[in-house]
Amino acid sequence: AILEAIERALTGPDQPLKGRRALVTSGPTHEPIDPVRYIANRSSGKQGHAIAAALAALGAEVTLVTGPVTLPDPPGVRAMHVESARDMLAACRETLPVDVVVCAAAVADWRVADAADQKLKKGSGGDALALSLTENPDILATLSQAGEGRPGLVVGFAAETEQVVEHARAKRDRKGCDWILANDVSAATGTFGGDANTVHLITADGVESWPAQSKAEVGRGLAARIADALGPAA
Amino acid sequence: AILEAIERALTGPDQPLKGRRALVTSGPTHEPIDPVRYIANRSSGKQGHAIAAALAALGAEVTLVTGPVTLPDPPGVRAMHVESARDMLAACRETLPVDVVVCAAAVADWRVADAADQKLKKGSGGDALALSLTENPDILATLSQAGEGRPGLVVGFAAETEQVVEHARAKRDRKGCDWILANDVSAATGTFGGDANTVHLITADGVESWPAQSKAEVGRGLAARIADALGPAA
Repeated sequence: AILEAIERALTGPDQPLKGRRALVTSGPTHEPIDPVRYIANRSSGKQGHAIAAALAALGAEVTLVTGPVTLPDPPGVRAMHVESARDMLAACRETLPVDVVVCAAAVADWRVADAADQKLKKGSGGDALALSLTENPDILATLSQAGEGRPGLVVGFAAETEQVVEHARAKRDRKGCDWILANDVSAATGTFGGDANTVHLITADGVESWPAQSKAEVGRGLAARIADALGPAA
Repeated sequence: AILEAIERALTGPDQPLKGRRALVTSGPTHEPIDPVRYIANRSSGKQGHAIAAALAALGAEVTLVTGPVTLPDPPGVRAMHVESARDMLAACRETLPVDVVVCAAAVADWRVADAADQKLKKGSGGDALALSLTENPDILATLSQAGEGRPGLVVGFAAETEQVVEHARAKRDRKGCDWILANDVSAATGTFGGDANTVHLITADGVESWPAQSKAEVGRGLAARIADALGPAA
């Protein structure tokens, strides 16, 4: 009876994700052009880091795979630091199997086809230069279709500047993930780099539009929904 | 006699740049691809910020035009924050006339010819995409050839990964600046983002190779050389 009480305390309402393994990606990726230049994006990592912290607070064993950010690693989380999309995918594969993955990183869709070993010089191509880009591996789609190793719940993000919900629904179908958290990153909202976020959760059942709230609150809200969906660990 | 003593104290050996106006550029520039993506480079701004602080410590009135960095503004310096090369040039022009300019920023040589207003979508161009780049304005060359408004002393930087001194000499001739501080940024040196720097000062008289030292020491060394070259203010 005492052991049962301890068990209940450890896996009770405060630790509903005890015994669950979670993987969260966060931040931007940097795609090298040459030794000094790269392609980046404006993701700060705040939302992904907040989700990792919230999942850990509910008892999950969390691995955070993060691109270059200026944020500290959240406490209680195993952090893996990467630069490029290919490095991020490799770190994710290494972390499988997990019960849930949340792909919050703003992964570069393209990388430079032929990154240079030496710094590119002006004038080598006259006044103009074309940078050939090639598609990066799609981490969300890859993890959504991982076959027997597929996480029980795959959550993607959609950062959109227009037709936010429509684009996010299409993305959910295209990627094969279970949920999409869609947010509006048009400049007027200040989402990129800011502390607040207005999101829509898109599931098989439809769309929930959450009120504007802090990224920490969005993280706690999503972690609670994940705990509901997974139920108690076996 | 008392006024003279005060004057001497204010403009004496500790404040040899009193009455001088200095302009320093620092950090990377970010060149937009679309609302969320940009081209960046690995400059941390540490060297440029250290030079601005060292010039201010010698009594100069310093304007620091800086791209996006995670460093605080140095005390006693007027800081102007910019993103792109074009914004940086505009801020520099606004600051003229000055007695000395030190162009330490790692200005992007190219920008995207047609930055998009909406986030670029995958699949719009099949698997591949070419990004058309066009040359940015050359801030160092522009300030070196500013005619009557030309600063008395124009100092450029050269970040090279090979044949450091040869490339820097050629750059000095090509840009029309007075001095070049050349450094080796090949990955093995850890210069980009690191605290130490090995530099060569290239002037009309030849090349001085300075010992490896901290970026703060390089800043103080350069500020002292600038004070020598300018002499006391009129």
